[in-house]
Amino acid sequence: MRQNALLRSEKGLEVPGTARKRDTKVAKVAVVKPLDDRHDHFAIRKGVRCAGVHLIVDLHGAKGLDDIDLIEKTLRRCVDAAQATLLHIHLHHFQPSGVSGVAVLAESHISIHTWPEAGYAALDVFMCGNADPDACIPVLREAFKASRVDVEEILRGKDA
Amino acid sequence: MRQNALLRSEKGLEVPGTARKRDTKVAKVAVVKPLDDRHDHFAIRKGVRCAGVHLIVDLHGAKGLDDIDLIEKTLRRCVDAAQATLLHIHLHHFQPSGVSGVAVLAESHISIHTWPEAGYAALDVFMCGNADPDACIPVLREAFKASRVDVEEILRGKDA
Repeated sequence: MRQNALLRSEKGLEVPGTARKRDTKVAKVAVVKPLDDRHDHFAIRKGVRCAGVHLIVDLHGAKGLDDIDLIEKTLRRCVDAAQATLLHIHLHHFQPSGVSGVAVLAESHISIHTWPEAGYAALDVFMCGNADPDACIPVLREAFKASRVDVEEILRGKDA
Repeated sequence: MRQNALLRSEKGLEVPGTARKRDTKVAKVAVVKPLDDRHDHFAIRKGVRCAGVHLIVDLHGAKGLDDIDLIEKTLRRCVDAAQATLLHIHLHHFQPSGVSGVAVLAESHISIHTWPEAGYAALDVFMCGNADPDACIPVLREAFKASRVDVEEILRGKDA
């Protein structure tokens, strides 16, 4: 379902009340900076210009993976921790068990799919611009009491 | 926003009118099979048991990346091509340009984020069970007239 147009540019996201927060974010995640005015949604990550940072995250030995309230709360906490902007969130609770959820962000998205019976959850955290995807990892680890968290980083659009 | 509970198991997805289609699917994507009754959402992919197949897809030299109607239609075509089950679809049109979209599936999700000015789109196609994620690639290539399509395959939850 289409939504009203929203601004993705830095300027466009300067909605009332967020200026101070965004200033804090820029100070915190110094590794991810706008490249220039025209491509301000592209970022520099560890010296590499890219469209965004895509983290492939696997949680093992995790708890609470059938608790849709915990999962929604945790996705929202991830968005806050990354200093990203939530546009839309949607979760499904499957039977007999398992949850799928996506958070659409001004900076891309976070998704989660859980297999409670295996203590396993597959997530991806894709963020462009100044958001800090790494900040989601400790939030996820703590919320789901994961015994192991595997993170693979992919720099998307390096040669775009 | 939470939705009504839906069944993720093979049995649960046997909604009226889909039985023949699902039979066809099982015959077509012989490389992805349910492992057993208890873990029927896990799959065997090229001999490896995994929770699902996650394709990281980059389109370069692509057209139509600011056309939200084309993008929605193409996501729906991908779902059909993969013989997956669409639960929810959501798209945002950014200004000055660019679209983000997610399709939540009974089998996981598809996401797209576009940078029309760079002719670049970053997608991921994550599917478990019997769906055929590879079937999305020619649909995407054709719809966006991409001059180059890069696909990286990740088998999620191999040791879950």
